[in-house]
Formats: sequence, structure tokens, C-alpha cells
Amino acid sequence: MHALWLENRRPSLRTDLPCPEPGPGETLVRVRLAGICATDLEMVKGYYPFTGVMGHEFVGETASPGALPIGTRVVGEINVVCGTCAECLAGRPSHCRHRTVLGISNLSGSFAEYLLLPERNLLPVPDNVPDDMAVFTEPLAAALQIQEQVALHPSDRVLLIGAGRLGQLIAQTLTLTGCDLKVVVRSAAPRQLLADRGIATLRPEEVQENSCDLAVEATGAAAGLALARHAVHPGGTIVLKSTYAGDTTLNLSQLVVNEITVVGSRCGPFAPALRLLASGYIDPRPLITARYDLDAGLEGLHAAAQPGALKVLLTP
Amino acid sequence: MHALWLENRRPSLRTDLPCPEPGPGETLVRVRLAGICATDLEMVKGYYPFTGVMGHEFVGETASPGALPIGTRVVGEINVVCGTCAECLAGRPSHCRHRTVLGISNLSGSFAEYLLLPERNLLPVPDNVPDDMAVFTEPLAAALQIQEQVALHPSDRVLLIGAGRLGQLIAQTLTLTGCDLKVVVRSAAPRQLLADRGIATLRPEEVQENSCDLAVEATGAAAGLALARHAVHPGGTIVLKSTYAGDTTLNLSQLVVNEITVVGSRCGPFAPALRLLASGYIDPRPLITARYDLDAGLEGLHAAAQPGALKVLLTP
Repeated sequence: MHALWLENRRPSLRTDLPCPEPGPGETLVRVRLAGICATDLEMVKGYYPFTGVMGHEFVGETASPGALPIGTRVVGEINVVCGTCAECLAGRPSHCRHRTVLGISNLSGSFAEYLLLPERNLLPVPDNVPDDMAVFTEPLAAALQIQEQVALHPSDRVLLIGAGRLGQLIAQTLTLTGCDLKVVVRSAAPRQLLADRGIATLRPEEVQENSCDLAVEATGAAAGLALARHAVHPGGTIVLKSTYAGDTTLNLSQLVVNEITVVGSRCGPFAPALRLLASGYIDPRPLITARYDLDAGLEGLHAAAQPGALKVLLTP
Repeated sequence: MHALWLENRRPSLRTDLPCPEPGPGETLVRVRLAGICATDLEMVKGYYPFTGVMGHEFVGETASPGALPIGTRVVGEINVVCGTCAECLAGRPSHCRHRTVLGISNLSGSFAEYLLLPERNLLPVPDNVPDDMAVFTEPLAAALQIQEQVALHPSDRVLLIGAGRLGQLIAQTLTLTGCDLKVVVRSAAPRQLLADRGIATLRPEEVQENSCDLAVEATGAAAGLALARHAVHPGGTIVLKSTYAGDTTLNLSQLVVNEITVVGSRCGPFAPALRLLASGYIDPRPLITARYDLDAGLEGLHAAAQPGALKVLLTP
């Protein structure tokens, strides 16, 4: 089969890969559409050591027998977990000590014609959710992880810093809480996307001190964190929603004296993401910047790495 | 009156200060006993710009008319707040934007014969709480702030890093939750104090990875935070209970990927601290390292700065 392969940080198109064969409990999934995420781009930069088929965002259809009829449209939880380690048994399966992660860690990914996942990882996609929306389930779930971790109140003043791929989805989900949301954004295009949904925006220099209860940092840059600390009031919370290259220097005493809580946040729940897509309250489709055939996937990776690019989709 | 004065980082004994005169709503308090805290020592090192009478830990007795009869033994909340700013009105008076802080910020402190506080800051000390215990109310309140901020469960595995002045009090309060507490301590004397109360201890090198739900960092050193991050499991919480000199370098991606929550924690509630002292469940008296007359207060500051020193008390 055809797939985008990563080895020694170099992505390449492979046309010689065998179609994977499902083992016990596994389902073969034909990929209908895959999305390129910032993590994929960071893997190309070498932030994660990974060799194999790239990609973890997808919508597909089942292609081997199981509880779901063949041809069922599905999305899939990307963490494949053991179910028996201390983390799994403590209700934190996404932190399973023996986990493999689709296209990220020891598991062949979604930039391919076919992939394998345990059947228990798959969720059927409601009929009214088209592929162009369903392919956003994984990043939308990551956005919702904020509300899983932090008690967000309708009257909260929330500052979101960053309006990229993930930031746009976070902005949409935060709006649904009724909170007083402002999004810090520099560029015109992402600002327009937010304005189209009636979401208020600010430039970085307009952010007031002590002006929010919760700040969500979604830029992955130290300057974003500094802005969050400027904006959040004493006793407030900062959610870190991006990974950061290298180390960051912090004044921890400021966190102590102002009693700030900093929450690291990663993968989230798929089922609520699918419910919100089905309800129509979330529409990620305006984020689609470009589409490429899988065979032109290297161009797709290049396009996704350009400034201002949001979601680039690959069709096998 | 006599008092320990700080100016240009230099503490000195003053014998020429006028006795303060209470304004409206204020009460004159005769200091019976004062305690030297790490913050006092840091002020001498120049970490806080402060000129005036040092000290914020005390037990005293009222010496001017008011709702409390003259001679009532009292302790006092150290933050004097406006009650009208956004922080006060939001229920965060300890973060009042216009606050003064006893012996720390724009308010004459407790290393003196007399001090002034608003009457509403004063709490009567129960008769069965001797001065030697009541003088610990402020740091004990700071210890209890952990339980104010974090939902601590009886079945939690908790690692406390640091067994100094504040660490010893934190250890005592954490024990009361029923949690599975282990305290990281290097030196024999603080280990013995913990052992005397049946509290388990570890050396830093004995701390296992992923071995606790909550880690409390009470050393104020970057190595303590690194140990906390090593010990806390994914999804767990680190409470920062000390201030840190200068900046600290952190790998924030590790916090994100492991979904760690970091909570800065400072001043705490006085009333529960007094209740726990009155109940006898907390006994801070074994922490008393030395006592000095106020007039020998400079020797007291020197003694408190020695390695291994815990609480040094000053008697006016």
C-alpha cells in the first residue's frame, strides 16, 4: 500500500508497504481522509524519534470483520493501551505505561491507505457528520480536554493565546461554555475565522494585567506563557495546550506568590467531540487550508508547515 | 519602643521607635512572642525591598480598647486588605491589590514590643493553646493552604520534599488527612522530628518514579522541583510551597505530555490553624530551636540562618 513514511526525520512516500493484517481484537481500517497536525511537523523536525507510517488524525471505514459491520465509518482513539498497568487501572489509560500511539510511538499511522487499531479504540461516526468534519475528531477531543481538567464556569473570563489549528478548535469549544472569551491573535486570516463565529479577539499588546480567570496557552512559545502569566489574576489558572521546544525559563516565585495553577493538557475524549460535531455546534471545516492526495503527501506536509496554514488534509 | 529594623538589607536593633497609635478600626497589640521565618531571612538577603520593623509571625495581646477586651491573647492575619478592589470582592483578599503585609510590605512588623493591625485581622487564641504553639499559627495556616487549593484524598500517595520550618508543619497537617505520606529529608535532626510523629521519610535517591499522586515542594530549590516531577505520576499535581531565588529552567513539554498540574501556594487560613492547635492534633513546639530576647534579635536572626535551624523565637 501507499503511505507517508518517516525515518531519520525524513518523510518519504512509500508504495511498497504490505497492507496490515489484523490480529486478535484488531480491526483493519481503510483511511478515507487524514489530517496533518503540528505534532507531525514536529516529528519531521526531530522532536520525536519515530520510524514508520506518520499520521494520527483520520476518518476511515472498517475493512475487516468484527462487531462493527464492514464499511462502518469510524474515528479512532490514538492511544493503544494495555489495560493492566497502574495508570490504566487508575483510570488514566491515555498515560498507559505500555501505550503505543498511532503514527507517533511504535504504531503505524494514518497517512496510509490502511491502518490497524484495536476494535475498542474505534467509534462509529454519526451519519450527519461528513468526513471533512469527522477528521477533526482527534484535535477537537484534545481541545475538550481543557474542560475535562479544569472546572470552567459560564461567568469566567478566559483568554486563549494562539489561534492556529488547535487554537481555533479550542476557541469554538470554549465559546460553548458561555464564558467571556477573548482570543489573542496576530494575523488577519485566523482573526477573521474567529470573527466569523462572533468570537472576540485581541492583539498581544491589548491584553490587560489581571484580566482573566483562565488563560489557555496554545502557541507553544515562551512569549505565549509570559502573556498568560501577565493576564491571569492571582489564584487563576493557566492551561498549557502546546508542547514547547527545549526548556523554558520561568520565575516560579511569581507562581507561588500569586498562587497560579498551571495545568498541562494533552489528549482528550473522543465521544464528546463526536457529539459536538453531530450537534452542529462545532464546525471545523473553515479550518481546511488545502487538500492533497496521499501520493502528494510530501507537498501536503510542506504546505502545512507554511505560516498561516491551518488544516491540510490527505486523501488516500 | 524596641524593635528589629530593616533598612538597605541591614537589620538593626532600634530602641528609639515610638509606640504605634491605633487609628480607626485598628488595635494596638503587645507582642508576647514572635517567630523568625525563612521570608525574614530572605528579606535580609535582599529578596524583598522593605524598610521598617521586620517580622510577621507573632502571638500577642490586645493593648487598646475595642471589641476584644484589653489583654485578650490574639494572633493576626498578616495581610491588611482594602475590601473593595477586584481581588477582595472576588473572594481573594489575600491577593488584595492594595494590601500591606505585616513586616513584609509597607506595614510595621512583629519583631517589636507593639504592633498595629485592623481589629478584623485579629483572632483570639483559645486558652488551651500556649504562646509557644500560637506563635506558629501563621506558618501552620500557610501549610493548610495546600488543602484549601487541592482536593486531597485519604487514599492519595503524597510526597513532601523538604522538612524545614514549613515542611515540618506541612508534614503534620498532611498526616491528618490519612494520606500515604512520605517526606524526603537529608538530615538526621528533621528526620528524627518526623520519626517522633510516626511520619515515614525517604532520602532523595530512594524516591521512585511515578510513585505519588501529589508532590509538595517545600525546599525552594530547583532540585526539589525536579524530584517532584520525577515522583508524580501522569495527571498528578505538584504544589509549590516555597519561593525560589531567581529563575528556574523547566521542560514544559514534560508537564504537557504528562498532564501535570503545578499549583503555587502561599498564605493560608488562620481559623483552621488555631482549631488544629487547640485540638492538640498539631504540636509545633518540637520545632523550636532557640529563643532570644528581642534585644538580642540580631543573634536570633543569625541563629535562624544556620543550617538545621528550625524555629527561632523572639521575646520582647
